[in-house]
Amino acid sequence: MSAPNRATLWGRTLVDELAKGGLEAVCISPGSRSTPLTVAFAESDIEVFSHLDERSGAYFALGRARRTGEPTALVCTSGTAAANFHPAVIEADQARVPLLVLTADRPHELRDSGANQTIDQVKLYGDAVRWYAELPDPEADERKVRSLRTTAARALAETVGSPAGPVHLNCPFRKPLEPTETEEIPDSFAETLAGRGRESAFVEAHTGRPTLEPSSDAVGDLADALATADRPLIVAGPADPVDLVELEPATVLALADRVGAPVLADPLSGLRFGEDVSDGPVYGGYDAYVDALPEPDVVVRFGASPTSKPIRQVLAAADADQYLLDPAGEWREATFTATDLLAATPESVFEGILERLEEVDEAVGSDDEWLERFERAERAHWEVLEGGLEADALERDPFEGAVLATVFTEAPDPATIVVANSMPIRDADRFARPRAADLTVLGNRGASGIDGTASTALGAGSATDDPLVLVTGDLSFYHDSNGLLAVDRCGVDATIVLLDNDGGGIFQKLPIADFEPPFTDQFETPHGLEFEPLAALYGLEFERVAPADFATAYRRSLERAGTQVLALEFDSQANHRRREELETRLEAALTTD
Amino acid sequence: MSAPNRATLWGRTLVDELAKGGLEAVCISPGSRSTPLTVAFAESDIEVFSHLDERSGAYFALGRARRTGEPTALVCTSGTAAANFHPAVIEADQARVPLLVLTADRPHELRDSGANQTIDQVKLYGDAVRWYAELPDPEADERKVRSLRTTAARALAETVGSPAGPVHLNCPFRKPLEPTETEEIPDSFAETLAGRGRESAFVEAHTGRPTLEPSSDAVGDLADALATADRPLIVAGPADPVDLVELEPATVLALADRVGAPVLADPLSGLRFGEDVSDGPVYGGYDAYVDALPEPDVVVRFGASPTSKPIRQVLAAADADQYLLDPAGEWREATFTATDLLAATPESVFEGILERLEEVDEAVGSDDEWLERFERAERAHWEVLEGGLEADALERDPFEGAVLATVFTEAPDPATIVVANSMPIRDADRFARPRAADLTVLGNRGASGIDGTASTALGAGSATDDPLVLVTGDLSFYHDSNGLLAVDRCGVDATIVLLDNDGGGIFQKLPIADFEPPFTDQFETPHGLEFEPLAALYGLEFERVAPADFATAYRRSLERAGTQVLALEFDSQANHRRREELETRLEAALTTD
Repeated sequence: MSAPNRATLWGRTLVDELAKGGLEAVCISPGSRSTPLTVAFAESDIEVFSHLDERSGAYFALGRARRTGEPTALVCTSGTAAANFHPAVIEADQARVPLLVLTADRPHELRDSGANQTIDQVKLYGDAVRWYAELPDPEADERKVRSLRTTAARALAETVGSPAGPVHLNCPFRKPLEPTETEEIPDSFAETLAGRGRESAFVEAHTGRPTLEPSSDAVGDLADALATADRPLIVAGPADPVDLVELEPATVLALADRVGAPVLADPLSGLRFGEDVSDGPVYGGYDAYVDALPEPDVVVRFGASPTSKPIRQVLAAADADQYLLDPAGEWREATFTATDLLAATPESVFEGILERLEEVDEAVGSDDEWLERFERAERAHWEVLEGGLEADALERDPFEGAVLATVFTEAPDPATIVVANSMPIRDADRFARPRAADLTVLGNRGASGIDGTASTALGAGSATDDPLVLVTGDLSFYHDSNGLLAVDRCGVDATIVLLDNDGGGIFQKLPIADFEPPFTDQFETPHGLEFEPLAALYGLEFERVAPADFATAYRRSLERAGTQVLALEFDSQANHRRREELETRLEAALTTD
Repeated sequence: MSAPNRATLWGRTLVDELAKGGLEAVCISPGSRSTPLTVAFAESDIEVFSHLDERSGAYFALGRARRTGEPTALVCTSGTAAANFHPAVIEADQARVPLLVLTADRPHELRDSGANQTIDQVKLYGDAVRWYAELPDPEADERKVRSLRTTAARALAETVGSPAGPVHLNCPFRKPLEPTETEEIPDSFAETLAGRGRESAFVEAHTGRPTLEPSSDAVGDLADALATADRPLIVAGPADPVDLVELEPATVLALADRVGAPVLADPLSGLRFGEDVSDGPVYGGYDAYVDALPEPDVVVRFGASPTSKPIRQVLAAADADQYLLDPAGEWREATFTATDLLAATPESVFEGILERLEEVDEAVGSDDEWLERFERAERAHWEVLEGGLEADALERDPFEGAVLATVFTEAPDPATIVVANSMPIRDADRFARPRAADLTVLGNRGASGIDGTASTALGAGSATDDPLVLVTGDLSFYHDSNGLLAVDRCGVDATIVLLDNDGGGIFQKLPIADFEPPFTDQFETPHGLEFEPLAALYGLEFERVAPADFATAYRRSLERAGTQVLALEFDSQANHRRREELETRLEAALTTD
C-alpha cells in the first residue's frame, strides 16, 4: 500500500500534533478546499462539531472555549466562509478566549487571479489575533513537516498565552484534496516523521503567566495602601475564561476579609456564585446602590471592565488610588482614572499582599462603618426586589429583572448560565443574588455584541454536564437563529429563556427615546416576529409563559430532557419604568434605614 | 433656537454631501453609537432600509448595488456589528460592487481601554476596500467640515471607480449622540457651511474609465489577430455591476458578427438574455459541449472568470492567443494561459477593433465550419434538454437542472433573477437557454460563497419593479435565513425557488464522495430541516411542488402578489446521474449528427 498524498499527509500531521498538544474539540464547516483538515480531524480522537453557518460555528467554538478555558479549533473552506468567523474572532480577542482558527486556502499562485472562492485571507483578522502564520505549500519534505508540527504546537500554546486569544493559521492546499493514495511519497516518510512525529508531542510549548513576587515594590505599595485605607474596595470584573476555571476565590476573599474591603462581584467574575461566597464580603446588588454610598479611597480592580455603569461612574469620580491588576498588562479601564497598573495575575498579587500584611503588627482594617453600609444596602436591595417578585406584584407589574432574579435563585447547583448582551446582562448584574452554588455564568462582554448568543450558549453546553440555561432578548435570539441548529446537530440541551419585548428594549434607556421619528423605526425596531415557528424549525419545545408563572415553568424545564424555549412577553417602556420604581423604593429604604 | 450639537451637525453634513453626490439608498442596523448617522439619514431623502442582522443588511445593500450599478451605503454601530459586514465587503471587493460602509466608532481615546463595544475598527476590512479613511472627531471647525464634505464626496466616487468596490469610512462620535440642541455652536455656522454646503454638492468627483484609442498598437494587434483567425472566440464572463447596467450588447455582437466569432455568454454576463441576443451568435449551452468542439485560435475574454469549468479547461489547454480585457487591468484568469492584457473597457476595445476592421479590404471571417459547429451543438443541447423537460420524463427522472431551465424560459419579460452559488448557478450556466427577453441575472460570483443569498436577492428586488425570482439550494437558504426578514421589513416580494436536496449536493460531484466516512457527516452534511416553519416565521407562503408541476406553480407564483417559497425536493445523487445521462445523450447526438 502506498502513502497518502501530500495534502492528506499534511492535514494528518497538523491534526496529530494538535491532538498531542491537548486539543479536544473542533468546529468544522463543510467545504471542499478544507478537505485534508476535515478528513484528518474526522479520523482523530478530537471531538468534531459540524456547523453549516460559519458565523454560528465560530461562536459555538467560542462558547466552548469560554466554558473550558481551553482552546477550541475552527475549520472552514476558503472565501467568505473565513470572513464569517470574524465577529467571533473579535469577541475572542477582546474577551481573551482561546481559539485556533484554521482557514483552508487556495495555493499561493491562485491569489488575485480571479480563481473561484479565492480571496485575500492573509492577515484576514488584522490585529485581532495573537499570532498569524501562513503555512507553506504542503510537501513531503522533512524540514517542512518539522516546521508544520512546530507551528501547530506553538499556535495552540499561543491561544492560552498572556493574554489568551485567537490564533489564525492560513492553510493552502492543492489538489488532490481527498485522501487518495499516491506513489510519490515513500511509505517510510509517511510512517515516521509525518505520520507519527515523536512519541509524545513533537514540540511541547509551555506557557507561563506573569507573577509579582511578594517582595516587589508594587506589591508592597499596594499592601500599604490597603492596610491604611479607610474605605478599600475590590472590584471584580468579568473574568477571562482561562482565569475563570483557575480562579481561587478563597484568596480574594481572604484578602477582602483581612483588609475589610467589600468585593463587588460582576455576574461574570466567577465570584458572585460559589461555595465560598457566603464566607466573604461579596456583594451583587451594587448596581442599584453603589452611587448612594461613600466613595472608596483605595480600589483594587481586576478582570475586564465591569458591566455596571454605576460602578464605573463611581470609580471615575472617586478621589482614590486605583490599582488595575492584569496579567497581560492591558489597561482595561476607559475613564483613565486608575493610578497604578500591575501586570501580573491577581492571585500572585493577592498572595503577596497577604504575606506582606502578616508582617504588619498593628491592626489592619477599614472604617467600622464601611462594610456595614454595604451590608445594609445589599440587604435593602434584595428586600425591595423580593417584594417585586411576589406573584401578585408580578401579575400587576411584570418586569424582565424579575425573570433574571429567578433564573439565578432557582438554578440547579451546578448549572451553566449564559446571559445575552444588551438588557439581560444588565438585569443579571442588578438582580442576580449571590449564592453559595456552583453557577458558571458566561456572557460575551468582550465586544458586547448581540450576535452569536445561542451558539455561544450551546458551545458552552457542549463542554459540560451541567444543566444549561440561556437568557436572551428577542433581537439576540433572532440574530443567531441559525445557531439553534446545534441543539440537534451537536446534541446539546438547554432551557432558553426568551425575553421578548419586540425590539431593542435597551434604547428606551437612552436619550434618543425622546426623538420620534426616528426612534421607533430606526432604534427600537419592532419586528413583530412570533418565534414559535423558529422553535418548530429546529425541533425545540416552545412555551409561552406569563411572568408570574415563570418560576414554575423554569423549574419544570430544568427537570426535563430536550430543549425548551420559555417565551415571556414584556413591554420595554413598562420595564424601564419598573426598574426606576425599584430604584426609588431602594433609595427610600436606604434613607429611612 | 440654537444649533444642533457637533455630532448631529457632523452626521447631517456627511449625509447631506452623500445625498448631493447622488446616493439613493442606505441600509442601517440599529445601534447607539451610530445615532448621528441614523438620525441624519432618516431626515434625508435617501431611502432607508432597516436591518436587524448586519450580515444580512450588508448583503441586501450588495444586492441593491449589484442591480443598480450605483453605490448603496451601510451604517452600523461600533463593535462586532462592523465585522458582520465583512463577508459582503469581500464579495463587493471581488465582484466590484459599489458599497459605502460607514461604521460608527467610539472616540479615539477609548480604543484599547476596555471600553464597552470598542474594538479596533481601523482598516477592519484590510485590503478588501478601495479606500479606508478615518474621520476626525466631530467639531464645528470650518476646515474640518470642509474636509468632511470632501471625504464624503471622494468616498462615494471611489465606490464607482475602476474597479468599483467597497469604501470604508470609520466614523468616531462622542456623546451627546442624539440631536439635542446646544449653545456651543453658532447658528451661523450650522446654517452655512455645515448645514448646507454649496448650492449643489460641495465637491463633485467625476470618475472616468480607462479606454484604448483605436489607433493604439494593442487594439491594432487584436484586430489583426481576429481578422486572420480561423477559430476566434469571444468569452463573456460575469459582468461587473457597473458594466452590467452600461453594457452595449450591440457592440459585442457587431464584432462577433464581423469576425465570425461565437460569443459564449455566461448567465451573469448580461449577454445571454436581451433584445439583441437573437440577432447575434450568442451561445448558452457551451458548458455541455465546448470540450467536444475544436479549440479556438484567438480568444477575447472579458468580465470575471466564467462560471463554466469546461470553458476554463478548454481555454487552459488551447494553443491560442488569448486577450483579457479589463478596465481595472486585473488578471482574472487563474490558469495563466492568456497572452495579452488590455487594461481598458471592452466597449472601447471593441469599437476600436471595428473601426480598424473597416480599413481592411479583404474578407474577414472565421472558417466556414467554425460557427456552424457551435450552432449544431447548441441546437442539439437544447433538443436533448427538452426531452428531459417533458412531464413524464420529469416524473420519472426529476433533476434540478430542469427547474433552472424552466425558471429562465418561463420568466416574465422583464424579470430579475438571482441565482445562488454552488449547484444552482452551475445548472443555470448549463440549462438556461438564451432568450430575447430583458432578464437581469445576478449571482455572487466574486467569492462564490453560499452566504447572504436571500439578502442579495431582496436587495436587488428593492431597486426594481421587475418580478423577482430567487433560485437557491437548501444550504444557502438556511445560511441567510435571517435575510428573509427583509421581505416584510423592506417590502420586497419574490418567488423563491428552493431546491432542497438536504445538504451540500455539490459534494456529490467531487472525489471526496467516495470516502465514507467522513463524506456524509462532514461534507454532504444532511440537516433534515423542513422549511415550512421558516416561511411561517417570516410570513411567506410555502408550497411543496413536485418537479413535474413546477412550471405551473412557477407561473402562478409570478402572477401573485406576496412572496412564495416553491420547495422542490431532490436527491443529489440521482441529480448528478441525470446530469451525466444528458451529457451522454448530447455526445451521442453530436457524434451521429
